[in-house]
Amino acid sequence: MRTVLFVGSFDPFTLGHHDIVMRGLQVFDKVVIGLGVNPDKKMMFDLEKRLFFIQKVYENDTRIRVTTYSGLTIQFAAEIGACAILRGIRNSIDLEYEKTIALANKNQNSNIETIFLLSMPEYSFISSTVVREMIKYKGNLQGLVPDVLIPLLQQ
Amino acid sequence: MRTVLFVGSFDPFTLGHHDIVMRGLQVFDKVVIGLGVNPDKKMMFDLEKRLFFIQKVYENDTRIRVTTYSGLTIQFAAEIGACAILRGIRNSIDLEYEKTIALANKNQNSNIETIFLLSMPEYSFISSTVVREMIKYKGNLQGLVPDVLIPLLQQ
Amino acid sequence: MRTVLFVGSFDPFTLGHHDIVMRGLQVFDKVVIGLGVNPDKKMMFDLEKRLFFIQKVYENDTRIRVTTYSGLTIQFAAEIGACAILRGIRNSIDLEYEKTIALANKNQNSNIETIFLLSMPEYSFISSTVVREMIKYKGNLQGLVPDVLIPLLQQ
Amino acid sequence: MRTVLFVGSFDPFTLGHHDIVMRGLQVFDKVVIGLGVNPDKKMMFDLEKRLFFIQKVYENDTRIRVTTYSGLTIQFAAEIGACAILRGIRNSIDLEYEKTIALANKNQNSNIETIFLLSMPEYSFISSTVVREMIKYKGNLQGLVPDVLIPLLQQ
Amino acid sequence: MRTVLFVGSFDPFTLGHHDIVMRGLQVFDKVVIGLGVNPDKKMMFDLEKRLFFIQKVYENDTRIRVTTYSGLTIQFAAEIGACAILRGIRNSIDLEYEKTIALANKNQNSNIETIFLLSMPEYSFISSTVVREMIKYKGNLQGLVPDVLIPLLQQ
Amino acid sequence: MRTVLFVGSFDPFTLGHHDIVMRGLQVFDKVVIGLGVNPDKKMMFDLEKRLFFIQKVYENDTRIRVTTYSGLTIQFAAEIGACAILRGIRNSIDLEYEKTIALANKNQNSNIETIFLLSMPEYSFISSTVVREMIKYKGNLQGLVPDVLIPLLQQ
Repeated sequence: MRTVLFVGSFDPFTLGHHDIVMRGLQVFDKVVIGLGVNPDKKMMFDLEKRLFFIQKVYENDTRIRVTTYSGLTIQFAAEIGACAILRGIRNSIDLEYEKTIALANKNQNSNIETIFLLSMPEYSFISSTVVREMIKYKGNLQGLVPDVLIPLLQQ
Repeated sequence: MRTVLFVGSFDPFTLGHHDIVMRGLQVFDKVVIGLGVNPDKKMMFDLEKRLFFIQKVYENDTRIRVTTYSGLTIQFAAEIGACAILRGIRNSIDLEYEKTIALANKNQNSNIETIFLLSMPEYSFISSTVVREMIKYKGNLQGLVPDVLIPLLQQ
Repeated sequence: MRTVLFVGSFDPFTLGHHDIVMRGLQVFDKVVIGLGVNPDKKMMFDLEKRLFFIQKVYENDTRIRVTTYSGLTIQFAAEIGACAILRGIRNSIDLEYEKTIALANKNQNSNIETIFLLSMPEYSFISSTVVREMIKYKGNLQGLVPDVLIPLLQQ
Repeated sequence: MRTVLFVGSFDPFTLGHHDIVMRGLQVFDKVVIGLGVNPDKKMMFDLEKRLFFIQKVYENDTRIRVTTYSGLTIQFAAEIGACAILRGIRNSIDLEYEKTIALANKNQNSNIETIFLLSMPEYSFISSTVVREMIKYKGNLQGLVPDVLIPLLQQ
Repeated sequence: MRTVLFVGSFDPFTLGHHDIVMRGLQVFDKVVIGLGVNPDKKMMFDLEKRLFFIQKVYENDTRIRVTTYSGLTIQFAAEIGACAILRGIRNSIDLEYEKTIALANKNQNSNIETIFLLSMPEYSFISSTVVREMIKYKGNLQGLVPDVLIPLLQQ
Repeated sequence: MRTVLFVGSFDPFTLGHHDIVMRGLQVFDKVVIGLGVNPDKKMMFDLEKRLFFIQKVYENDTRIRVTTYSGLTIQFAAEIGACAILRGIRNSIDLEYEKTIALANKNQNSNIETIFLLSMPEYSFISSTVVREMIKYKGNLQGLVPDVLIPLLQQ
C-alpha cells in the first residue's frame, strides 16, 4: 500500500488543496494530510479550527488521514511510512520555491521522493491568501473552498 | 467614455506608476487612481500624504481622478463604472502574482477585464521599495519619482 | 471609436485566440484580426484556408474585421488607425517573448501601445501547435477550437 | 501494481532520463519507457539505435519495459494501463511546456494523471542537445550518459 | 588589482555564499565581504556573531576582507574601490530581484558593474532560511554550511 | 592581465552585444570576441561579413580581439587563456538556457568561470532576430545596432 504525505498550514483549506488530494488518490492508495504546527506564524484560524475544517471535508473517506505534526516534514514523512511527499505546483514561482524545499529534503533523507501534480487551471488562482481576503471583505467563496466549508468560514 | 481603474498602495507613487497612467490615457479616456486603504499594512507615508503626492502630480489633468477606497478592488471598479482594471507588469514574478489577482477578480465579476501594460525598460527597476530605500539612505531620487515629488519626499 | 489590432499566423485559429478577441470587445469598439503573410514559415493550412476559418467564426459580427497583411505589424497598426495592438499572455515564456516584441514596436512607433489580456485558465494550454497535433493524430478537438471549425478542421 | 509511462525521443538517452526512471521506481512498481516514433523530426540516431541504447541500460531490470509507440501519448498510456505519465522538470521553461502538454492530455482523458519529479541538481544541465554537442565535438561524455552507453555513443 | 564586493545579511553564512566567494577569487584578486547593518530586520544571529562566523571561515585567507557596512551598497562599493559588486543567482526568482537591485545601483553610479555567477547545482537549494530551519529543528547541517561553522551553529 | 571570452553567432552584431563588451571592459582587461563557426545553421550574413561587421565596430580598440573559432567554446576559452566566459542575460528565458550551457562547460573544465552581466533595460529587447526582421521589412535600425553598421546592413 502506497502512502503519500500532503502538508501545509491550510489557513484555510481550499479547493486547490482538495483537488491535489483527490488526484493524488487516483495514483496512490492513501493520503495523509499533515497540518504543520508553527507557533511563530500568525494565522487567521487557530490550529483546532484548521484541523476541524479538513476533517469535515473528508469525514467519510477512509483513504485520507488528517493530523497535525511538528518538526521537519521529511522526518514526519519517514515516521508515517510515506513513499513520497505530494505537492501541487501552480506556476514558476511555486516551482523555484518547491525546488529548494524538495532538494533540502532529499539532502536530509534520499529515500523519500517529492512528487508534483500541476494545479488544474480552474484552481490555479486559488490560494489561502485569496480566500482570507474574500472572507475579510465578504466576497463570494463559491468555487474557492469545498462547499461544506462555506457556511463555517463565513461565520 | 471608457474609464479604467489603476490601484495600489503607492507608498510612494513612482515614475513607474506615472508611466502606466500616462500610457493608459493613450488608450482610454479616463483613469481613476484608487489608493487602497489597508490599516494592517505598515507604510512609510500615511494615507493623507500618499493621496496628496498623487494629487500633486495630476492637479491639472482632468482625465485623472485620484481617490481612496476600501474593500475589494473589483467591487470598487464596478461602482465607478470602469470597463477594466489597468495594471503594469515588470517581469515574470509580477505576472504570476497578477494572474492570481486577475483570475480571482474574474471569479467575482466576469464583466470587468484586467488590462496589462508592460513597464517601459527604463522604469522596470523602479518600485516603491527601491524609492523608500533611497529616501532612507538619502540616495538620488532623480528618475525614480515624478520631479514635482522630489522636494516633498526628501523632507 | 477605439480600434485594436490582433495579429498572428493562426495555423489554425483556436478557442484561445477567440477568447482574447471576445474579451477585447468588452473594452474596445472594434478588433481587426490581422493574419500575417509569411512565405518563409511552413504552415499546416494555407493562407486562404486560415483566413476562411476566421471569417467563418465571425461572419455575423460587424465589430470584427479579418484581413491579411504583410510587413511590420506596427506599421500595419498605424495604417488601420489602431490605438493599440492586443495580445494574449498565457505564461512567463509568453511574457518574455511579448516584451521583446512590444519594446521593438515601441522603438519604431511610440504612439501605439501594446495591451495584454491574460489567457483564461481553461484556455491556457491551447495553442495552434496542440491543435495541429490533435488533427494529425485524430484527437478530440472539442474545447480547443470554436465549434463551427471542428468539421472543417477534421476533413 | 502501479505502472507509469515515461516517454521521449531520447536522442540519445541521458543520465537525466535515467535518474527520473530510477526515482520513479522508488514510488511506482513498473516504468514503461515509450520511445515516440516521429518521422518528421530529424534525429542524430535512428529509431533502432535509440531503442537499443535504452534496452542496453536496463537489460536486467524486469521492472522496466522499453518500447516504441506512435500516436497520442495519452492514448498509449491508456492502452498499457498506466495510472500516470511520469515527467522530469528541470526549470521554469520546462514547467510551462509541461503544463501545456499535461493539460492537453487531461482534456483528452481525465483519468490519467501526469506526475512530475524535479531533476536532481547534478543532472539539471543535461539534455540530449548537450550530449549531441559533446558527441559532435568529441567532448567528455562522463557524467552525461549512463556509463554503458559511452563507448557506443563515441563510435 | 581588481576588488569586488560581496554583500548580504548572512544569517548565517552558508556553503552557497562560500562557493560564490571562492569562484569570485578565480576571476578577481580580492573579495570584500560586506555584512549589511539593518537594525529593522529581525535576525537569528546578532551582527557580532554573523561577522565572527564569516571571519572564522576565512581567517587565513588574505585575499578576503570581512567587514560590516551601513547605507547604500553602491556607495560602499565606491568607497572601497571595488570595480564590481559580485552576486550569485540560483534561479529566475533571484534574477528578477537582482535585476531590480542592479539597475537601481546603475542608476546611482554607472561606473560600478554588478557581476553574476550562477550557483552550482549542488548548492542551489541552500539559503540562510533553509539553514535556520535546520538549526531550529536540529536537522543535519552537513553540506549546508562550511564545516568549521557546524559546531558553532549547533550550540 | 585578465582576458574574457565573449562568443556568439552575431547574425548580425547588435547594440546589445556591444553594451556587454563595453561593460566587460570596465571589469576586465581584454575581451576576445569569438564568432562561432557553425556550418549547419542558416544565417542571414555569411561568416566573412559577420566578422567584418564586428571588426569595423572595434577597429581602433586594442583591448578587443575579434576572431572565428570552431569546436567547444570551453576548449577555445582555455586555448586563449581566458579566465572566464562573459555572457549577457536579458530575462529568465535566457537564464535557464545559460544555466544549462554554463554547467555543461563547468562539467568539461572547472577552472573557467562563466560571468554574467544583465542587459541594460534599453537594450533588453534587442536580439539579432529583431534586427534581421527590421532589415527584412526596412524598419528603423537606429538604436538597434552600432551606428557604424547601419549603412552596411541596409545595403
